[in-house]
Amino acid sequence: MTQSKEINSYMNQLGSEAKEASLILAQASLEQKNDALSCISEQIESDRDEILSINKKDLDLAKQKSIGSALIDRLELNDSRINSMISGLQVVSELPDPVGEITDLDPTPSGIEVSKMRVPLGVVGIIYESRPNVTADAAALCLKSGNACLLRGGSEAILSNKIIWNCLQEGLKKASLPKECIQLVETTDRAAVKTLLHLDDYLDVVIPRGGKGLVQLISDESKVPVIKHLDGICHVYIDEAADIKKAENIAFNAKTYRYGICGAMETLLVHSSVASLLLPSLEDRFSSEGVEVRGCQKTLQVINAIEAKEDDWLTEYLAPILSIKVVEDMSEAIEHIQKYGSQHTDSIVTEDKNKAEYFFKNVDSSSVMHNLPTCWADGFEYGLGAEVGISTDKIHARGPVGLEGLTSQKFIVKGNSNLRGV
Amino acid sequence: MTQSKEINSYMNQLGSEAKEASLILAQASLEQKNDALSCISEQIESDRDEILSINKKDLDLAKQKSIGSALIDRLELNDSRINSMISGLQVVSELPDPVGEITDLDPTPSGIEVSKMRVPLGVVGIIYESRPNVTADAAALCLKSGNACLLRGGSEAILSNKIIWNCLQEGLKKASLPKECIQLVETTDRAAVKTLLHLDDYLDVVIPRGGKGLVQLISDESKVPVIKHLDGICHVYIDEAADIKKAENIAFNAKTYRYGICGAMETLLVHSSVASLLLPSLEDRFSSEGVEVRGCQKTLQVINAIEAKEDDWLTEYLAPILSIKVVEDMSEAIEHIQKYGSQHTDSIVTEDKNKAEYFFKNVDSSSVMHNLPTCWADGFEYGLGAEVGISTDKIHARGPVGLEGLTSQKFIVKGNSNLRGV
Repeated sequence: MTQSKEINSYMNQLGSEAKEASLILAQASLEQKNDALSCISEQIESDRDEILSINKKDLDLAKQKSIGSALIDRLELNDSRINSMISGLQVVSELPDPVGEITDLDPTPSGIEVSKMRVPLGVVGIIYESRPNVTADAAALCLKSGNACLLRGGSEAILSNKIIWNCLQEGLKKASLPKECIQLVETTDRAAVKTLLHLDDYLDVVIPRGGKGLVQLISDESKVPVIKHLDGICHVYIDEAADIKKAENIAFNAKTYRYGICGAMETLLVHSSVASLLLPSLEDRFSSEGVEVRGCQKTLQVINAIEAKEDDWLTEYLAPILSIKVVEDMSEAIEHIQKYGSQHTDSIVTEDKNKAEYFFKNVDSSSVMHNLPTCWADGFEYGLGAEVGISTDKIHARGPVGLEGLTSQKFIVKGNSNLRGV
Repeated sequence: MTQSKEINSYMNQLGSEAKEASLILAQASLEQKNDALSCISEQIESDRDEILSINKKDLDLAKQKSIGSALIDRLELNDSRINSMISGLQVVSELPDPVGEITDLDPTPSGIEVSKMRVPLGVVGIIYESRPNVTADAAALCLKSGNACLLRGGSEAILSNKIIWNCLQEGLKKASLPKECIQLVETTDRAAVKTLLHLDDYLDVVIPRGGKGLVQLISDESKVPVIKHLDGICHVYIDEAADIKKAENIAFNAKTYRYGICGAMETLLVHSSVASLLLPSLEDRFSSEGVEVRGCQKTLQVINAIEAKEDDWLTEYLAPILSIKVVEDMSEAIEHIQKYGSQHTDSIVTEDKNKAEYFFKNVDSSSVMHNLPTCWADGFEYGLGAEVGISTDKIHARGPVGLEGLTSQKFIVKGNSNLRGV
């Protein structure tokens, strides 16, 4: 399937089948959807050995191509990762059904009764890179929210994705749901992604999961609305009214919990009046953890560090590197966040509640925190059950996107033959 | 200003100034925003004569260009339309402030406290055609929701838009808000629209208001997310369990309340068992009102009408023309709506509540109605206070878009030095 016409017709068929299946899935009961989820997890359990052995083939091919170790790590499935997939399906099945939820609105001028009903979006396209577990995780969230989905994973994971998809298909079949509710793009031809992004007749939204380059490319090309996540340049601001011991722990945890997550702190902002109290002990802890510190001029007056350059404030390291800037007051901290931040997650450490309130109102990020490390930014930790991604957009969904982010609302309007303008 | 480079730099300046002003407006109090709205309406009142005389110039120029009468009608301001603008500002000022509203979320696994705060989107681009009153209406909704806006009206209304914009500027000044909160594109060069649609560094959303052609063009070109409204192919389905007298009144009102609104019924679907009871009397009423009826074969067996062609089911007439189709059951009606509708507004007339419930769940339109004419689809009638448009999208805002549709929510996360993974 190398001809672009063939790809085009194949992708249109997948899209149109998904659209048709989505009408049936939108009407499925909670029981039927949970039934499918539980059949899927049983199937993954019973196919565990086969999944592992097929994943091994993907890994071998990837190693032959001398693909980097980070990618190999993401591509690998093992017993613990399969357990996570299975428990993820369980978590999603325990979540309440978002579909059908009714919100009553205020009385209307004419007396007609208006409410809103939560409904699935329809068909969700998911484009992801090497992690094959996304195949099950994303499909489960789409299924539970009543959306058909069109999955396009990384080419290096194609065999693993197919075997997991077989389990998904088996689960749908056992729950008497159309198999087209979960479509997998089986070709690794890159033209398929471009075509997918133009399936606006069939797809309601596209969610890219991957590095910034991929996401920006998809966002630029897509005719379908995109819920996206670009940078996670997260800040912790230590205020003059901070408890210094708390501040130290929060800053350390925000950087070192995990370097590779989007909620990891990349820049620490410290009020000048507490810099000399806080930074020396932090320097020790970061140094013994192997974290490289890059500081502004004022930071360098207090601790030993590499001099930070303008680019440092704009960089999502995703690595054991941290930039530190000493600021004169909260306003300077907020201005820095406005100028260099990515509107992902930013936190203030202070014992002054008024300052926290001011920070909440004035920092325009998808998550704004008080006395917490930014690494808490996560749909499960927020009580959303699971997340399909974190959005740094403002339209539709912002921050961790759970089931609700995969739905829309329609107006339900009831009357008794009320006529307008009569 | 005919050079595209100059247009580009001018539009970028407008966008960047609006972005900066939006940060201040986002923090404005309810009192300050309402103060601005009331100053604006006073200014429009005191400039009433000048507005009318300048609008006359736009009208004279338009007539010289032999522009159609429908456009001339939309372009014209008179005392009654200025009164509407002023009362519209009053209505918006009486609405509650959407900004800052807090929604508490469920307890989280770790005990961190998560809530959501409603916040403005930032900067809203509004692209509209000839009606100059949109300048005041749209700016008022943006202002109240804490959003800066960038207004681009039709070239034929440029003088009227500028004089109204002067009033807006005066109101902002009196309320001590930056004048850049409401930017007007003062050039009529078409290149400005294209540039506006690429200002994704500054604009958070674009709302086009106009004919389908304009909206489709904007949607295809825009790098900024678009909240859009395409067709309004609205259906009324008269069920076998309908009260025939109610059904007749609803069908008549749905078509004749106003032919040119997007909520006007374009196709009437009638259950075969009530066709001969309903259609003859409806035929009389439509005929005396000058409404042309186009019917399917089964309709023609009951009343005199022009034969409907396939295209009729796909046409938003926005005129005294109606297509009628007789169906065998509710399923056929819903299938017709799925195939030919535009997911705008569709209504069922029945005394059977279970059927109404089924219709609510299975018709995927932004408004689904029971025992009501579709012409009720309107933000003011829904109790939203006012609307900036009606969205037929599913992402972000669906149906009439009021103040809430111009906002987003961010996560507010509070803790007491809770560390993750420790």
